[in-house]
Amino acid sequence: MALIKNEKITSRDVDFAKWYTDIVKQAHLAYYTSVKGCLVLEPYSYAIWENMQKVLDGMFKELGHENVYMPLFIPESLLKKESEHVEGFAPEVAWVTHGGKNELEERLCVRPTSETLFCEYYSNVVNSYRDLPKLYNQWCNVVRWEKSTRPFLRTREFLWQEGHTIHETAEDAEAETHRMLNVYKKFFEEYLAIPVLTGKKTEKEKFAGAEYTLSLEALMYDGVSLQSATSHYFGQKFAKAFDVKFVDRENKLQYVYQTSWGTTTRMIGALIMVHGDDNGLVLPPKIAPKQVVIASIRNNDEVSKVIDQINEELAKEGIRILVDKSDKSAGFKFAEYEMKGIPVRIEVGPRDIANGKVVVARRDTSLKEEVNIADIAQYVKNLLVDIQQSMYNKALKHTQERTYTCTNLEQVKEIMNTKPGFIKAMWCGDPECEAKMKEIRGMKSRCIPFEEEHICDECIVCGKKAKHMVYWGIQY
Amino acid sequence: MALIKNEKITSRDVDFAKWYTDIVKQAHLAYYTSVKGCLVLEPYSYAIWENMQKVLDGMFKELGHENVYMPLFIPESLLKKESEHVEGFAPEVAWVTHGGKNELEERLCVRPTSETLFCEYYSNVVNSYRDLPKLYNQWCNVVRWEKSTRPFLRTREFLWQEGHTIHETAEDAEAETHRMLNVYKKFFEEYLAIPVLTGKKTEKEKFAGAEYTLSLEALMYDGVSLQSATSHYFGQKFAKAFDVKFVDRENKLQYVYQTSWGTTTRMIGALIMVHGDDNGLVLPPKIAPKQVVIASIRNNDEVSKVIDQINEELAKEGIRILVDKSDKSAGFKFAEYEMKGIPVRIEVGPRDIANGKVVVARRDTSLKEEVNIADIAQYVKNLLVDIQQSMYNKALKHTQERTYTCTNLEQVKEIMNTKPGFIKAMWCGDPECEAKMKEIRGMKSRCIPFEEEHICDECIVCGKKAKHMVYWGIQY
Repeated sequence: MALIKNEKITSRDVDFAKWYTDIVKQAHLAYYTSVKGCLVLEPYSYAIWENMQKVLDGMFKELGHENVYMPLFIPESLLKKESEHVEGFAPEVAWVTHGGKNELEERLCVRPTSETLFCEYYSNVVNSYRDLPKLYNQWCNVVRWEKSTRPFLRTREFLWQEGHTIHETAEDAEAETHRMLNVYKKFFEEYLAIPVLTGKKTEKEKFAGAEYTLSLEALMYDGVSLQSATSHYFGQKFAKAFDVKFVDRENKLQYVYQTSWGTTTRMIGALIMVHGDDNGLVLPPKIAPKQVVIASIRNNDEVSKVIDQINEELAKEGIRILVDKSDKSAGFKFAEYEMKGIPVRIEVGPRDIANGKVVVARRDTSLKEEVNIADIAQYVKNLLVDIQQSMYNKALKHTQERTYTCTNLEQVKEIMNTKPGFIKAMWCGDPECEAKMKEIRGMKSRCIPFEEEHICDECIVCGKKAKHMVYWGIQY
Repeated sequence: MALIKNEKITSRDVDFAKWYTDIVKQAHLAYYTSVKGCLVLEPYSYAIWENMQKVLDGMFKELGHENVYMPLFIPESLLKKESEHVEGFAPEVAWVTHGGKNELEERLCVRPTSETLFCEYYSNVVNSYRDLPKLYNQWCNVVRWEKSTRPFLRTREFLWQEGHTIHETAEDAEAETHRMLNVYKKFFEEYLAIPVLTGKKTEKEKFAGAEYTLSLEALMYDGVSLQSATSHYFGQKFAKAFDVKFVDRENKLQYVYQTSWGTTTRMIGALIMVHGDDNGLVLPPKIAPKQVVIASIRNNDEVSKVIDQINEELAKEGIRILVDKSDKSAGFKFAEYEMKGIPVRIEVGPRDIANGKVVVARRDTSLKEEVNIADIAQYVKNLLVDIQQSMYNKALKHTQERTYTCTNLEQVKEIMNTKPGFIKAMWCGDPECEAKMKEIRGMKSRCIPFEEEHICDECIVCGKKAKHMVYWGIQY
């Protein structure tokens, strides 16, 4: 059945970029204001973000992390304390120079990330090894003055969480770095239904100021990859720059070991690009603001009564429900739910209920089934579980089909120009070879996986002895 | 019993301002960084804020409000569209002038409030009366470049929520303005245990750009009042400045009617100053991060077992619990819980449990009672309800005792210089008379209550015919 709203979005196979922005607009996710590169998160995307926050926040707290709130501004002198960090961020920060009518004595940058502020705070809360670890997190807005922007994926202001922890030993801090990456992995796979690669970033791609960066990489429908979360190990680099010391078990002064980790509203972009189709968004049940819509086909008292009854039964199961008894045409209503990616639609019409039945349609496959009203709660409960799993399986299959093993650059070029995806290839460790790879559609190393395969002995670029197997890809 | 930590805070009757900052520091609520006038909200105050958010957010959503997120920045030209608004806010905004190394073509202010951004957004989501009302809210940070600051009460950056709504008619919008003030009143009285005055601000004290402002005023322990929440009615003022129109039921173009309402992390300051005492914070159970602490007096296996058992029983009741089996001295531990204002302390010691008992101490009155372990869950449940109510009653009594009816300025001066509080007095409506009142310790009109009493016929300042009964007070 051709649906009304569909005509409003470009097909994703025709023009993926246009399809993406069409969905952002038609599903009322975000709106560009007169502030260049900054978005309004509309109620629907914000509701998705709130669901993400709720789950992640619970996972963080479960592991003992406490939420705090740091200032929005960082004095220039503070930002400059760690040299690699300032080099990485200074070119893309927004500067506040005036308060009211007065010029400030020292300009302040709007936080692009808060390592420096946390370090200043640490100095004042840590004296002894007994005070460690300190496990903090904050939910906030950050600003990076990007030149080109794209809704959710790259905006000048975005919302995120940033975890910041300090530890007694390198082992503890490294364990935290890995533990939090795994929290993200679990969240992406079990809640967002998005399969991810995990591994270590190369020196060139790591966070400014980190000893190393771990990352989560996901493949979008168009074969382009998205860095979806990162977890950084800082060793004692910042601690030395900010003089964050504690008295250790041997009664000696020692620098703390530090981590940070974060993920952003960019996850909403990932949901769109992994699961969406030509009818709009497709949301995994665990994160969808509304999991089920119960809609009237034609309105009468009987239909209304059945809707209320089903609503009540599903609500008892804790299912998030939208009820729609409006007089709009079924075609119009359904197109709207499809655009919004509501996982399950229950159609309640006079003819079906006369037979004790309703029609249940799933968003991910478009399959419809007649279900006895008496069985509806159990049916929908099972269906939501099934949809969540099917969506993951489908995304995994796509990622697997688009993951290629290559041993020469001609293969890579051929793939990237036709059906791009993740490329597995050997690498010598030389940044020069990464620069060469970049000439192919801007490809970058995504990560060095924790369990590397041995594909061949030579670097795919220079032919010298390979050190690592690397995942490569084009990125958003 | 003299407690160890007490010595760290000044008595509130000796130096209230010092007492306040001592508590902020000793209860680990906030920390000043190198960013002048900006705070770190430490885990404990942030947990209080999260509890406040959860309750208020639920109340807003219950009434149909949806959360959104607007940009942090407002272009200067947008801020200037409504003339009274910009006059009120421009002197105290922070200006971003550079992005990276480049000077911006137009400078951006860091939002002090978001009316202008919402107005820009409204134009794009409202066409017809069928689209109204739109009921939005956002949780975010705002910046006002204040000259003198004080933790929670007045800081250059603070966290808040700002509700923004548009309506078809003036009646609807005015009803919303009152409805949301009542939501705040309910929240303050039932959750924060803080009694409040409600009423309308005078022209002089209203929000920049509003037709009128309603406010919630609470009296602190020292008799100084705190404007605790505000709700503004804008009529069509902003709608005209921003050209926000819709097609009404008569098919005519019409401007929308608008409201906004907000409250901030300043509520944490109110909790401190209304309920705190010389031993630290005293938190109302409904908002306390931990409602009960179960602490060992001396540790042994039996004590540990009883603690676990009580913990389990209270957790079943949904009570938020802190368990402390540490070996620190009871005096030290207790002082810490008192400082943090945990409403109930359960002391588990070998001697008492031999008799099947534990000692239960309440924070608000310091009363202790021996309770049978078998009865503990029911006892604590009732106690928490009782504490919540007692704290409200105590604060109400204090406010009533410090509310004075005056008919001449000599009385007012005498009161404000000895035992300040709310002054009820008649007023002619002339801002000149408000200016005269200000000469008495900076007093301002707090609000014109919804139900005015008739005290006398003459304005307390000029003696001319009075128009209103006004509550006056010194303010934070």
